[in-house]
Parts: sequence; C-alpha cells; structure tokens
Amino acid sequence: MPAPVDHSERRDRIAEIVSDIISRDGLDAVTIRQVATAAGYSTTIVTHYFASKRELLLYTYQAAATHAQRRVDAVLGRDPLDLQGYLEALLPLDEASLREWRVYFAFWQLAAIDTEFATEQQRGERHAREGIVRILEARARAGQGPVPADPEAAARRLLTLLLGVAVQAMFDPLDWSAGRQKEFLTGELRALGACRPAMPVA
Amino acid sequence: MPAPVDHSERRDRIAEIVSDIISRDGLDAVTIRQVATAAGYSTTIVTHYFASKRELLLYTYQAAATHAQRRVDAVLGRDPLDLQGYLEALLPLDEASLREWRVYFAFWQLAAIDTEFATEQQRGERHAREGIVRILEARARAGQGPVPADPEAAARRLLTLLLGVAVQAMFDPLDWSAGRQKEFLTGELRALGACRPAMPVA
Repeated sequence: MPAPVDHSERRDRIAEIVSDIISRDGLDAVTIRQVATAAGYSTTIVTHYFASKRELLLYTYQAAATHAQRRVDAVLGRDPLDLQGYLEALLPLDEASLREWRVYFAFWQLAAIDTEFATEQQRGERHAREGIVRILEARARAGQGPVPADPEAAARRLLTLLLGVAVQAMFDPLDWSAGRQKEFLTGELRALGACRPAMPVA
Repeated sequence: MPAPVDHSERRDRIAEIVSDIISRDGLDAVTIRQVATAAGYSTTIVTHYFASKRELLLYTYQAAATHAQRRVDAVLGRDPLDLQGYLEALLPLDEASLREWRVYFAFWQLAAIDTEFATEQQRGERHAREGIVRILEARARAGQGPVPADPEAAARRLLTLLLGVAVQAMFDPLDWSAGRQKEFLTGELRALGACRPAMPVA
C-alpha cells in the first residue's frame, strides 16, 4: 500500500522552492515547470495544488508571513511586553528574514496592481499595527516604561519606520547592518512616550 | 531626405511604455515584443536601444527618478527651505507619482537580488538623504524653525518614514490618503528639533 500523500506538506515544500527561486533569481524566474523540476514533481502535481503562478505566489507570501508570525509568537511567549523583540522579529536581520523580505518585495510588485494581493498586504500591515497597540496597552497596564498618549498613532509610526528600515536594509546592508537596524529601533522606542510627534509643539 | 532620428526621444518613449505596462499589468507583462508593438517599432529597433528586459527596466527606473527629481527641483526653485514640499514631491500623492512608485516596486524586486540595481537604489536613497540634510542646514543658516541637533540622523529618520509611508500608501490608499500622508509628514516636521529620538531620555 502506498504511503498517503500529505497535501499540506507538499504545498509547503512547493512554497519553499518558490521562495528559493525568488531569493536567488527573482520572480520572473518562477515558472510552474521550474518549480516542478526543483521539487521532483510533475507539472501536473504542481498545477493540482496551484492553478497559476499567481496562486503559487500568494501561498508563498502567506507562508513567509506565517514564519514571521511564528518568530513574533516566540518573542511574546517569552515576554508579552517585549516591543523591541516584536519589531526585531519582523526586520530583515538575518538570512532567513532577508529571504522572506525578498518574497514580500516580489509580492508587492503585484500587490501594486492587483486588488486581492493589495488586500492581503493591507491585512498584514493592520495586523502588525494591532500587535504593536496590544503590546503598548499591556505595557501601560503593567506600568512598564513611558506609554505614548495615543497608542494607535504610535503604532502607525513604528510600523512606518519598520517598513522604511526594511526597504533600505534590503539594498544597503552595509549602511543598514543588523546592528544599526536594532540601534535605530532602540532610539525610537526610548523616545516613545517622551515625544509626541503628532502633537503640535507648544 | 528622411527626418533625423531622435534617439533620446525614442528611448524616453520606450521608457514611458514600459512604465505603462508595469503600472497596468506588472513587470511580468513587460516583453521586448510587447513594448515594440505598443511603441509601433519593430523589435529590432527596441533591441537596438535596450539589449534586454533588464536594461529596459534600469532605464525606466532612471526615467521615473528623473521625473521625481524635476518635481523636487521645482519645489526648491520656489523655496529652497521648503522641506515639506521636498518630501511631498517624493510621496505617491497623485496618479503620476503612484505610477512612478509602481516602477520602483518592480525595480526593488530585482534590486533585492541584483547588485547593480541595488547600487542604483542605494544611490537614490543617499541622494534623497543628502537633499534633506542640505535643506536642514540651509534652514539653520536662515534661522528658520527648530533645527535638529543631528541633521544626518534627522534626514535618515525622515527618509525612513517617507519610504514607510509610500509602501503603505501603495496598498492601502484609503487608510493612507494624500491628505493623511501630508498630515503625517507635517506632524513629524513639527516635532523636528523638538525631540531627539536618537538621544536617551533622561
């Protein structure tokens, strides 16, 4: 009797391969045939799971986001008030997260012209922002650290900074080393609650 | 006698068409043949100017950056101290600049894996940062507005915020309307010189 096929495992294996191709050769290089060859599957098996390159990319993006979420969950499992850890888990600080960011970049290019992909991206950004708000509120309840007057605005600002850092770190890794990314974040978090840039300066 | 061929005009016409295709259908849809058809040229003419899709994209990116630079120059021509105007000229506030940002996104996807493209992107970012530093210094000399203690750090922060805003505005234009993008920027500029997030809070 043949072993039962683990469909979810196959999908994840395919997403891994798509990630590899995007990281190495870019989105243009992703074809159903190329993916099938690298996975050791027939193209029929690949198209059984993913009808198009578009579907392949959507799943690969979601898989990358799931990996990032796992890192975030691990951080908050250790310390639910660790805002710096939360943000660092989302930055391109090592090869694994750089690889995820390359997938995001490939995805963005399509999200800029495709409503479904844009909605997925919106969801991810709002989710990240809500996560920041929750930590800020938990810190307030625990009486830990300065708490910004407007957690929503602070979260919006922190996510904006995080995205800006990630974009620069991708292209200028010497200027934006992992150390500098963390340092920059530390500076912003230190000032949190101490300045309120959205408020007029008296 | 046939009219002399204006090569620079042809190149720019081709770059415009590539921009259109990227904005409408994404980078995947850009092929030499497609570009030739849209331009009314033979593929031989297109390949005379651009040997590959890669070269096409590099030129199109540079053309988008040149357009943005012209907007910046126009702002500074009116008022060399207008930092808000400088930054707004770089944000995706209208259809023309959104189109440029779609070209940047297509370019980023390749810059994430291609050293020459990454270098081009680094150059653009450093250039934008230097522009901010120059305006901050000119404002200091003119005694206009609060001047940050560390203009380099302030410029780095402002460009980081600008990139983060642009990325979000591309996917969530309702949440990041032109009005909100400007308002966010105004808040940050108002606080400039008033808080120094890179310094420890006593």
